[in-house]
Amino acid sequence: MADKTIIFYDFPSKNGSWNAFALRIRLALNYKGLPFETVWVEYPDVEATLKAAGIPPTTKWPDSGKPRYTLPAIVDPSTGTALADSLAIAEYLDKAYPDKPLLMPSNTRALQVAFEEAVPSSIGPLFQFILIKLCDVVNPASEEYFRRTRASLFGKSVEDLVPKGESVKVEWKKVEDGFGKIAGWMKEDKFIMGDTASFADFVIGAFLIMSKIAWGEDSQEWKDIAGWHDGRWSKLVKNLEPYYSN
Amino acid sequence: MADKTIIFYDFPSKNGSWNAFALRIRLALNYKGLPFETVWVEYPDVEATLKAAGIPPTTKWPDSGKPRYTLPAIVDPSTGTALADSLAIAEYLDKAYPDKPLLMPSNTRALQVAFEEAVPSSIGPLFQFILIKLCDVVNPASEEYFRRTRASLFGKSVEDLVPKGESVKVEWKKVEDGFGKIAGWMKEDKFIMGDTASFADFVIGAFLIMSKIAWGEDSQEWKDIAGWHDGRWSKLVKNLEPYYSN
Repeated sequence: MADKTIIFYDFPSKNGSWNAFALRIRLALNYKGLPFETVWVEYPDVEATLKAAGIPPTTKWPDSGKPRYTLPAIVDPSTGTALADSLAIAEYLDKAYPDKPLLMPSNTRALQVAFEEAVPSSIGPLFQFILIKLCDVVNPASEEYFRRTRASLFGKSVEDLVPKGESVKVEWKKVEDGFGKIAGWMKEDKFIMGDTASFADFVIGAFLIMSKIAWGEDSQEWKDIAGWHDGRWSKLVKNLEPYYSN
Repeated sequence: MADKTIIFYDFPSKNGSWNAFALRIRLALNYKGLPFETVWVEYPDVEATLKAAGIPPTTKWPDSGKPRYTLPAIVDPSTGTALADSLAIAEYLDKAYPDKPLLMPSNTRALQVAFEEAVPSSIGPLFQFILIKLCDVVNPASEEYFRRTRASLFGKSVEDLVPKGESVKVEWKKVEDGFGKIAGWMKEDKFIMGDTASFADFVIGAFLIMSKIAWGEDSQEWKDIAGWHDGRWSKLVKNLEPYYSN
């Protein structure tokens, strides 16, 4: 087992892997030390690529109700497993490879899932700001599709989602407070579980890496985020660097 | 350490301890096997009792902005600690008594806190139904105060909070779905962390014990809850019974 290379489906960009959900699994695969190979998929090709690989859809489109195929996704030739959804993949990897470092150690699976579900209610306001930046991150082959489908998912265009005028400060403060809530949970700890990295760190870390890519290291936005809560977020990104390779 | 009896401030009723937040700590103290003695406090006496014991307030009243004193609260003569708030108390007990069974084992403190904060968004709809029943659970000395302050906290009277007509089924289904979400996190596990009980179980368990007391064991409401998700909630209450003593 685990000798055969896992096929990992991810979204490309000129800066490499950038999508916060796919990044969770990239970090997870590297953390577990599992051999993998990336298949880079542009947004318009996701459905056909996953269908061809036998990977089932994960959700439905809110407007049409049709099956929605999403990344991250993997095919593991060692077990014949083909699946999508970052949480499902993380659970699978721990089950299939329990001797490699665990993503959800010490029987924390249910707590990790609860954490993952609690995060959007904390840092959800980030999306209003970041989606328009991500239109420049994705490759030209994906941009039109990305814009159109985000509008479908969020109910308005990426331009209309961006806070304007006085609400910029208010909404950006909500992002800071959302991260502050998580900082409060973590106290002085390096990772969510103290000295040991786990899936929860990859969830937060992936949102941070995506933000750094979306705005650029020298932007005011990234400088803001990197400085919040005693610089803990730039430290977390640094601590996860060993597991971020394209 | 831990030889002196901890003073535990809890709300009385003819059925004993019933408050979901205080119950968490009752379960926790029994689980850790720490000697404690209950001081039963009626709602109108909470502020004076806690002030006299040197226990600080935990929050503010939404209408007046004045400090709000809440139970559960403890005074631990072994360490001179006096504090309120179930989460703060749980963290304190693990720190002060690390050799007793841990409420947040395996460095899960941050995950447990995230879990605790995620729970209201799951089973929040329960409160619309249960508050009016709790007016009959509290002793007569507390009822007027309980009604008046719940109205202040929730923005409407306990009678107006209760779903009516067609929304009864809809809102009760939301309660079921909220518990269903947690059941989904737990899968087939006995406790949130598998075979080991932890603070997260006391959070859920306390809401369940409160529901059983509020409606009574023979009510349709409790029969509903006890039957949801393959009977796992009545099993959880049964599994926590050793730690529920008045």
